[in-house]
Amino acid sequence: MSPTPTAGARVTALDTYDIRFPTSRELDGSDAINPDPDYSAAYVVLRTDAAEGHEGHGFAFTIGRGNEVQVAAIEALREQVVGRSVDGLCADPSTLTRDLIGDSQLRWLGPEKGVMHMAIGAVVNAVWDLAAKRARRPLWRLLAEAEPEWLVRQVDFRYLTDALTPEDALALLRRGRQGAQERTARLLERGYPAYTTSPGWLGYDDDKLTRLATRAVADGFRQVKLKVGADLDDDIRRCRAARSAVGPDVRMAIDANQRWDVDEAIRWTTALAEFDPYWIEEPTSPDDVLGHAAIRRAVAPVKVATGEHVHNRVVFKQLLQAGAVDVVQIDAARVGGVSENLAILLLAARFGVPVCPHAGGVGLCELVQHLSMFDYVALSGTTEDRVIEYVDHLHDHFLDPVVIRDGHYAAPTAPGFSAAMRPESIARYTYPGGAFWAADPKRKEGQAS
Amino acid sequence: MSPTPTAGARVTALDTYDIRFPTSRELDGSDAINPDPDYSAAYVVLRTDAAEGHEGHGFAFTIGRGNEVQVAAIEALREQVVGRSVDGLCADPSTLTRDLIGDSQLRWLGPEKGVMHMAIGAVVNAVWDLAAKRARRPLWRLLAEAEPEWLVRQVDFRYLTDALTPEDALALLRRGRQGAQERTARLLERGYPAYTTSPGWLGYDDDKLTRLATRAVADGFRQVKLKVGADLDDDIRRCRAARSAVGPDVRMAIDANQRWDVDEAIRWTTALAEFDPYWIEEPTSPDDVLGHAAIRRAVAPVKVATGEHVHNRVVFKQLLQAGAVDVVQIDAARVGGVSENLAILLLAARFGVPVCPHAGGVGLCELVQHLSMFDYVALSGTTEDRVIEYVDHLHDHFLDPVVIRDGHYAAPTAPGFSAAMRPESIARYTYPGGAFWAADPKRKEGQAS
Repeated sequence: MSPTPTAGARVTALDTYDIRFPTSRELDGSDAINPDPDYSAAYVVLRTDAAEGHEGHGFAFTIGRGNEVQVAAIEALREQVVGRSVDGLCADPSTLTRDLIGDSQLRWLGPEKGVMHMAIGAVVNAVWDLAAKRARRPLWRLLAEAEPEWLVRQVDFRYLTDALTPEDALALLRRGRQGAQERTARLLERGYPAYTTSPGWLGYDDDKLTRLATRAVADGFRQVKLKVGADLDDDIRRCRAARSAVGPDVRMAIDANQRWDVDEAIRWTTALAEFDPYWIEEPTSPDDVLGHAAIRRAVAPVKVATGEHVHNRVVFKQLLQAGAVDVVQIDAARVGGVSENLAILLLAARFGVPVCPHAGGVGLCELVQHLSMFDYVALSGTTEDRVIEYVDHLHDHFLDPVVIRDGHYAAPTAPGFSAAMRPESIARYTYPGGAFWAADPKRKEGQAS
Repeated sequence: MSPTPTAGARVTALDTYDIRFPTSRELDGSDAINPDPDYSAAYVVLRTDAAEGHEGHGFAFTIGRGNEVQVAAIEALREQVVGRSVDGLCADPSTLTRDLIGDSQLRWLGPEKGVMHMAIGAVVNAVWDLAAKRARRPLWRLLAEAEPEWLVRQVDFRYLTDALTPEDALALLRRGRQGAQERTARLLERGYPAYTTSPGWLGYDDDKLTRLATRAVADGFRQVKLKVGADLDDDIRRCRAARSAVGPDVRMAIDANQRWDVDEAIRWTTALAEFDPYWIEEPTSPDDVLGHAAIRRAVAPVKVATGEHVHNRVVFKQLLQAGAVDVVQIDAARVGGVSENLAILLLAARFGVPVCPHAGGVGLCELVQHLSMFDYVALSGTTEDRVIEYVDHLHDHFLDPVVIRDGHYAAPTAPGFSAAMRPESIARYTYPGGAFWAADPKRKEGQAS
C-alpha cells in the first residue's frame, strides 16, 4: 500500500514537547516498582509543507523525571529528519529507520536500547502516522493491506536471521493474506478483545479493587490484571478479593513489574497459584531471558508474560528461542517504532506465541491497538488467547481516543496512528511552562526545597 | 577501608561538560560499525566544600553526536546528589548508588541500560574517585584493602541471586585476601599485562598495520588486536600481514564490533581460523546471549569475548550461565560504575572466567586499570590469560595518565580513580564553545549545510 504522492513536499520541522500529567496524586499506575508515576510523553511532531497539511505525531512514554532527557534524545535526531522528502519517507519508512538505527555515533548510546532507542521509536512512529494519514487509512489497515514484499522490506533482520529470515517472514505474511478480508470485516464489527488493569493498581484499597473488578466483568471484560509483588500477605488477600469478585471464569493476570529475583518469583507465584492466575507478568528483570525460562518451567501451568520493558527485537528473539515466555507483550513506544514491532510480531508468529500488548500510560492504548489489529488481520489470523491491555485514563487528551465496547477495542477508522494529542492538552501540561504546572503549588514547593 | 572523615562537608555542585575530540579525522578508532568516531566524554565534577578541596570526577564515554543527550542525563541526577554528606557518600557509596538505580521515574528510561544507566555510572564513578582521594589511595588499592563485608555491601545483588549470592561473594573475597600483600608488591613492581589495539584499526592501510604490529611486539606487548568484519578478503590479507609481523607466539585477537548475525559470525571466524586468532570479540549483538553461546560452540578453540556494550550485570550473569563467553570484557563507563563492576568481577570469579577489560576511548584505560588491579590483588589472584586493552591516544588530556612499561600498565599511586582531565583540555575541547571547536572550519561548514 503505497501512499498518495504529493510531489516535492518536505519535512520542514521536528518539534518536541515535554508533556507531563500529575497522575501520581491519585496513585493511578502505582505498582511494586513504580509507586508514584507522573505519566509523561516526550512528544514529537514532524511538520511538512505538504498541501494537505499533514503532520506526523509520535512520542516516547515516560513516568516523569527524566522526560527532558528523552526530549533531548529526540532533538538529537532532528538533523536526520528535517529536509527529507515526504513522499520518500512515506513510500518506504525503512530508509529513515535504517539511517537512524545505523547512525554509528548515536548507536554507541545504546546500542538499540534505552533513551536513544525510544527516541528513534518516537520519530519512526511519527513517520508511520504521517504515512497512514497520507494513505487515508488507519495504520492497522495500511499495514494489513500492504504487499508482503513491501512489509518485509520494512523489517531490519540484523541479528534475527538465526531465528527468522526474510524468506520466513514473507511466507508468514503470504499465509496471513488468506481470509484477511473476512477478518477485517469481523474486526470492524466486533473489535479486538481487551483486558483491564484499572482495578488492580497497588495503591488502591480492597474496596476499590473489588468494586472496579466487579464493574470490569459487568463491562464485558473477560480478563483483569492485578499488581503484585510488594507484600505477599497483601497479595494473597487482594488476589482472593479479586477472584471472588470476577468469579472462576474470568481470567486474572498478575503483574510483579520486575520486582523479584528468579527464586523469589517462583516462590511467590507458587504461593498465589491457588487463585488461578492466568499469567505472571514481568516476574523479574526484562533482561533476564534465562531467568524467565527457569521461572516458566517452575510455575506452569501459570503462564509467563513479559515485554513492555524488553528493549529490542534481539531480546524478544531469545525469549522465544529459550521458551521463556507464553505471552509476548509488545509496547508501541519502547522499541524502534512500528518497524521494529513488525519484526517482533513476525518472530512471535514464527514461534507460534500469542502477542498481548502492554498499554496504558499516555497514549499507548491508542498506538498499540493498530499493531494487534494488523496482527489479527494479516499475520496471526486469530484473537484466541490474545488481548490488548486497557487502562481507562488520559484518553481524553487524544484527538482519536480508543473506544472500548463490551470489553473490546473498536477498530479505529480515522487516518493515521491515533497518536495526535489535543493541542489544548499539550499546551496545558507542557512542563514546566504549561498552565497546569505553572500554577501548581506542589511543583513550586518542590523547587524551593 | 573507610575514608578519612571531614565533618560536615557536603556536595555543593554537580557540574557537567560536553567534551569532544576530533578523532575521526585520523581514522583512529575506526572499525566495522564505527567508521568515524569523535571520541567524547559527558564529563561530571562533584564539587564539595571539604577543607581539603576534594572533588569527584567521572564521565560517560561516547563517540560524538548525542554526547549532549548523555550530558542531559547526568544533569537529571543533580538533585539526588547535591547536598549529600561527603563523609556519608564516601563511607558507603552504595547508598547513593541504590537511590540512583532505584529512582523509579528515571528507571523507566532503561531500566538499567543506555543513556540513563551510563549517566548513573558517571556519577557513581565520580563518587568512588572522591572516596579514593579522601582515603589518599588509588582506587584499586582502596578496593583491594577494603573489608570483604564492606565490599559486599557495595554490590547490588538484585537479579543475581540465582547465580551469585552475598554469601558466595563474601567467600570469594575472603579467599582473595590470601596472598594479597604479595600480589600488591608484585603489581607495584611489574604492573598488569596489557594488549594493544593501536595497530589494528580498520581505517589503517597494510603498511601502517604491519609497522605498528611490529613495533607493538618490540614494545613488549604479548597480544595485539585487529578490527575485522567489513570485508572478508581484506580481513584475510590483514590477518596474514599481522600474524607475519608478530610471529606465531604473540596472541592476535580479532574484533568484529557486533557486525555479524550468528551464522555469519561462525562462517567468518572459521575463515580466519588459519591465522590462529586468540579471541573473536563482539561477533554479534551484545544483547544476544544465546547467539554468543552458539558462536562459541562453533568456533572453539577460538575464544569468544564480549562485554564493552553489555549494559548491566544481568546480561553478564546470563553470558556466564549460558557458557557464552571465554573472556569477560568489562567497561568502566558503560554500566553503573565501580559498584556494578564489582558485581560483574564477582560473577566472573564465581564462574572462573577471566576478565580482560575494554579500554581506549577517552580515559577508559585510566579508569579500568584500577578494576583489573583490584581483581588481581583481591579476587582472581592471577594475571594468567588476563590483559587490559591499551590504545595510545588521548592520555595527555588526563592529570594522572596511564603509564605503560614493557607491555604492562604500571600501577597508579596517586589518590583517586585517575579520572580527572586537565582543565586546559576541558576548556579547549568543550563542545561547541571551546577554543578548538569555536575555531574549527569543518564544524562551521557542517552547521551551514
